[in-house]
Amino acid sequence: MIKAGIIGATGYAGGELVRLLLGHRNVSVKWLGSKSYIEKRYADVYRNLFTLVEDTCLDDNLAKLAEQVDVIFTATPQGYLASVLTEEIVSKVRIVDLSADFRLKDVSVYEAWYKIAHKSPQFIEEAVYGLCELNRERVRSARLVANPGCYTTCSILAAYPLVKEGLIDVDTLIFDAKSGTSGAGRGAKTPNLFCEVNENMKAYGVAEHRHTPEIEEQLSYAAGRELKISFTPHLAPMNRGILVTGYASLKQARQEDGSMALPSKKQIRAAYEKYYGNEAFIRLLDEGVWPETKWVEGSNYVDLNVKVDERVGRVVFMGALDNLVKGAAGQAVQNMNLMFGEEEAEGLKLVPLFP
Amino acid sequence: MIKAGIIGATGYAGGELVRLLLGHRNVSVKWLGSKSYIEKRYADVYRNLFTLVEDTCLDDNLAKLAEQVDVIFTATPQGYLASVLTEEIVSKVRIVDLSADFRLKDVSVYEAWYKIAHKSPQFIEEAVYGLCELNRERVRSARLVANPGCYTTCSILAAYPLVKEGLIDVDTLIFDAKSGTSGAGRGAKTPNLFCEVNENMKAYGVAEHRHTPEIEEQLSYAAGRELKISFTPHLAPMNRGILVTGYASLKQARQEDGSMALPSKKQIRAAYEKYYGNEAFIRLLDEGVWPETKWVEGSNYVDLNVKVDERVGRVVFMGALDNLVKGAAGQAVQNMNLMFGEEEAEGLKLVPLFP
Amino acid sequence: MIKAGIIGATGYAGGELVRLLLGHRNVSVKWLGSKSYIEKRYADVYRNLFTLVEDTCLDDNLAKLAEQVDVIFTATPQGYLASVLTEEIVSKVRIVDLSADFRLKDVSVYEAWYKIAHKSPQFIEEAVYGLCELNRERVRSARLVANPGCYTTCSILAAYPLVKEGLIDVDTLIFDAKSGTSGAGRGAKTPNLFCEVNENMKAYGVAEHRHTPEIEEQLSYAAGRELKISFTPHLAPMNRGILVTGYASLKQARQEDGSMALPSKKQIRAAYEKYYGNEAFIRLLDEGVWPETKWVEGSNYVDLNVKVDERVGRVVFMGALDNLVKGAAGQAVQNMNLMFGEEEAEGLKLVPLFP
Amino acid sequence: MIKAGIIGATGYAGGELVRLLLGHRNVSVKWLGSKSYIEKRYADVYRNLFTLVEDTCLDDNLAKLAEQVDVIFTATPQGYLASVLTEEIVSKVRIVDLSADFRLKDVSVYEAWYKIAHKSPQFIEEAVYGLCELNRERVRSARLVANPGCYTTCSILAAYPLVKEGLIDVDTLIFDAKSGTSGAGRGAKTPNLFCEVNENMKAYGVAEHRHTPEIEEQLSYAAGRELKISFTPHLAPMNRGILVTGYASLKQARQEDGSMALPSKKQIRAAYEKYYGNEAFIRLLDEGVWPETKWVEGSNYVDLNVKVDERVGRVVFMGALDNLVKGAAGQAVQNMNLMFGEEEAEGLKLVPLFP
Repeated sequence: MIKAGIIGATGYAGGELVRLLLGHRNVSVKWLGSKSYIEKRYADVYRNLFTLVEDTCLDDNLAKLAEQVDVIFTATPQGYLASVLTEEIVSKVRIVDLSADFRLKDVSVYEAWYKIAHKSPQFIEEAVYGLCELNRERVRSARLVANPGCYTTCSILAAYPLVKEGLIDVDTLIFDAKSGTSGAGRGAKTPNLFCEVNENMKAYGVAEHRHTPEIEEQLSYAAGRELKISFTPHLAPMNRGILVTGYASLKQARQEDGSMALPSKKQIRAAYEKYYGNEAFIRLLDEGVWPETKWVEGSNYVDLNVKVDERVGRVVFMGALDNLVKGAAGQAVQNMNLMFGEEEAEGLKLVPLFP
Repeated sequence: MIKAGIIGATGYAGGELVRLLLGHRNVSVKWLGSKSYIEKRYADVYRNLFTLVEDTCLDDNLAKLAEQVDVIFTATPQGYLASVLTEEIVSKVRIVDLSADFRLKDVSVYEAWYKIAHKSPQFIEEAVYGLCELNRERVRSARLVANPGCYTTCSILAAYPLVKEGLIDVDTLIFDAKSGTSGAGRGAKTPNLFCEVNENMKAYGVAEHRHTPEIEEQLSYAAGRELKISFTPHLAPMNRGILVTGYASLKQARQEDGSMALPSKKQIRAAYEKYYGNEAFIRLLDEGVWPETKWVEGSNYVDLNVKVDERVGRVVFMGALDNLVKGAAGQAVQNMNLMFGEEEAEGLKLVPLFP
Repeated sequence: MIKAGIIGATGYAGGELVRLLLGHRNVSVKWLGSKSYIEKRYADVYRNLFTLVEDTCLDDNLAKLAEQVDVIFTATPQGYLASVLTEEIVSKVRIVDLSADFRLKDVSVYEAWYKIAHKSPQFIEEAVYGLCELNRERVRSARLVANPGCYTTCSILAAYPLVKEGLIDVDTLIFDAKSGTSGAGRGAKTPNLFCEVNENMKAYGVAEHRHTPEIEEQLSYAAGRELKISFTPHLAPMNRGILVTGYASLKQARQEDGSMALPSKKQIRAAYEKYYGNEAFIRLLDEGVWPETKWVEGSNYVDLNVKVDERVGRVVFMGALDNLVKGAAGQAVQNMNLMFGEEEAEGLKLVPLFP
Repeated sequence: MIKAGIIGATGYAGGELVRLLLGHRNVSVKWLGSKSYIEKRYADVYRNLFTLVEDTCLDDNLAKLAEQVDVIFTATPQGYLASVLTEEIVSKVRIVDLSADFRLKDVSVYEAWYKIAHKSPQFIEEAVYGLCELNRERVRSARLVANPGCYTTCSILAAYPLVKEGLIDVDTLIFDAKSGTSGAGRGAKTPNLFCEVNENMKAYGVAEHRHTPEIEEQLSYAAGRELKISFTPHLAPMNRGILVTGYASLKQARQEDGSMALPSKKQIRAAYEKYYGNEAFIRLLDEGVWPETKWVEGSNYVDLNVKVDERVGRVVFMGALDNLVKGAAGQAVQNMNLMFGEEEAEGLKLVPLFP
């Protein structure tokens, strides 16, 4: 039995971790950390878990927790983990960090976009970016996994085959993302009130959202060179779900007969099949069927599809996931499974809820 | 392995059955019947099940199906099962009927409220009303189970201890129910369009909804005499969930000291503890905490609470469930588990989704 | 031109007042008071009013404001107006108070339900309860109008003809109310976040909501004796709208032929016609058509209907209104129109928005 | 008094026309045409208009109607108007066509995208594209106005200053649009049911939506040469509102000092001010404030903003409108006002509803 602790257990991602770990055969949650709800019964914070979870919330003492558990999930604000992590801790316990503290390899990029100083840059290099489908092997042996952001998971997976196979001009990449409101967290803020979000669509963080450099870094690795993207997040009146619509110009490539041409529909699709054909959690939809967030709700799936628009020489690609599952807690469990030699899908065989 | 067939597999309740049975250890679905989608791939009708279900839809031949499976779920329009059921079928296969055909013992009541003739009244007597918490033992040996309605499951369970223990004047029972829109089915009708339901609350079927006699019959058994109720269903702008708010006048009863008095808060609560204290799927919430549909979403739970309002001499009682799970497919699986000697909760250990 | 000031202009009711007064021919808003947003541009608080309102928010100095305007609307927390009102103020300016401070005639009832001391009980007697359809004449000459609550307006208007005409047993009155979330205000509280309200139905304040004594007082006047009711408010996942479903037992009455009988459908309907037949803002729907909140959205209408359920000897009555219009700001403007001799519907000829 | 007739009065756009014309000082609606509801009372189709509209629905005889009214609005399916229009009709009455029949000047483009033959191409040339802010003078004298599409109005207005002023590379234009569900009409189709749209985001018509050539044609005029765009519409779980997020690469231009550089933030903003500074219905939001559909709900406003993203050399521009008002019925009334010499904003001084 893997003993797990959660720091930041009362945010939405923390609550989802508890939901998922309840269904995991080999994990037992030993510590529900929440600075704001210390000594409050957890099931009073998330009443969906009434009769299922009996524990009360504890404080968020990472060092103490490291003595008691095998794995720690940190679903905490940016900067928290970096400010308390020590070599002693990381040598005793394995960590899956759902914050952004160890996602970016260049500390100056982190500090520029997050506008805080990084308190433990010495761990950045060894941290493994936990996008399981791309970094599976490195995750297995990692002490510290940086669990990817919700937008980034969806954006990177949707674009990866195009970038990796050199099918597009990577300088034309645009990601237009729509997210449910749980991505904004459970903090009480006026803009997240029901009446402000309901019957409303809006963008935010235009050209300055923090997930931008994360997408850029990972796709740069795939491209073999640095690239920059446009990324626009929008808030949609729904609880869960992210839909990313991506655009890029196709790149002329030499064909079998020696001529130059844009990649064909078949070539594009083959690229997706190549990388995702055997992935349990990535569903490449049939031609002409576009991802919908409802079809993945509550599950760890990412639904993808792509279309060549010859008229304008562009490809449109799209991905959908549940921001709290594959975009946060589900991927964290997937990473934990890899780290502990569990079946990768254990605890994640969730059938999407419809309607 | 129990072999199961579903007739009416492409309605919302049918889709939910498929979702739940996918998670059941000992069931294999052999037949997805759907008159409207014959030969269409099931995962094209419910794309949430893409890669999970490979079958195509078959027609709804009950006799043929009875040869091939151990249990048939009928999630069909009123009158269908009654029109095709035969002794031969019922002797070969066990049936859980999600329609109303065999819920009411008095055929004239059925015909008056449903406005159709009952084609096989000979099976009414043996049919067992499948409200598991109340009829558990009889369900185990039933050949034909009448799976209760969504509103009725919630209403009956919420009122039962008060009626059974004689704590209220049963002639004052009023049920005011609010339902998500999946209860209206997947048929394409203008009043169920997004724009007509969203940002809207409305009642329907006022004083004439068909679940009324079903509640009355079951509570009459509990009361030991005939009773009549008021029942008003409302449509709420959400997908899933039923919330029933019930009202009744408390009844003066002789107290331990010989005096007459209204039942106390403690007595009322004790009645609920008595009947539901050991029920896995009924959660009696802490005092002062009222059921919310979101806390049971996707699960087989019924959340209940009750309050004595001394000021007016009434009790207010409330229940919440997911209309597609405990209100339909979940209860159907629970019945099947009882009928086949499976653990009652098998396939139903679903943690509610929040948010 | 009537000069108006609003104290509490940045709550949802305050914002709605501004919207409505912008469309009023003879009113000019001179003061937008908001303690929380002093010196902030009003159109930055309510961006729907960008280019329409140029003013910045001022503080909430009632005495100073009384010097400058003809009418003050107070859309403030309970207790505020009572704590600052003076004879000098009320002699200079007319006041429409959207809070509950002067709605209840019995100060002890106010203090018991609101759990605060009343600071200026000397104005309670003269304050006129501004339910225009019932108190029209007294409103015209009032210095201080207590604008009714949202639930109460809907509940009282829906039940009034039945009570006034003695058609029901007033001791059996039950009001089950469903409200949109704007009724909960714009304060940043976790339970009002989008993710907590969306896809959810819940009750709150069961048997202890503060609108209860207000309904009781007004209906007691109509009944000619004291009465007590059950009132249960519910929160629905929509922005605007209140739907009240009411229940009461019909009362045997002597018929024309001397016999005793329950009132007929025709008699019940005639009672509603009698009181509301000429009311511009009350729409008695056709038989069999039930009120829906969407049909009154954005308007000052109250839609009503009623049904006799002979089977159980009860009447079911229902009302729908927009809680921010007829339930708050619209009724406040209607009261102001009466007080200043304006056409009663001026500024309120709003066509409901559908869908 | 202008006498008006509406063909297709029972669709959502038709219903909105009735709502708006009820508030117009100089218009009287004489004919509510609806093939599906002939002889049905209009207020039974749109109950929000109960007591406000007494008429019953008539058939859709355009020739007969032309004898009786001054202006006809056709809110009809594609192909209808083209199939019945005659010189006699157009010489007697002025027409505002809300369908796409006369929006595209090149009949082969129409037939390719709409996949129907155009039955009266002889009127295409004289038809005026009724985007009032761009074609105001030509609308005044038009006999036949082609009222623009909802997506197109928003997309064109949001991009126009950039294209017209040559600030962008027009071959890089991408429009990512999100629409409320009323844009899908009132027809009863499964994908538009509440349960299918709620809690869901999805794209549709990817790279083949019919509004694409309309945007391309109008922006080509502005650019002075042919251009092609990417356009992706999405369905959002809300009733009303369109949000368009646009992207384009900035174009190097010669600066005052002779050097080449990308246009500055100031230059970009100046372009928007130049074209829209005096437009009553276009609101250029303050810097850093992004359009939200809720802020324009129920009104004829288009809210716009724009941002230079120097990091990637692109501009992000955004527009929001109410698809049933400025995107359909509101703009139709605006066109009618221009055609009949009315004040352009008459009937359209609608304050957006919030929340």
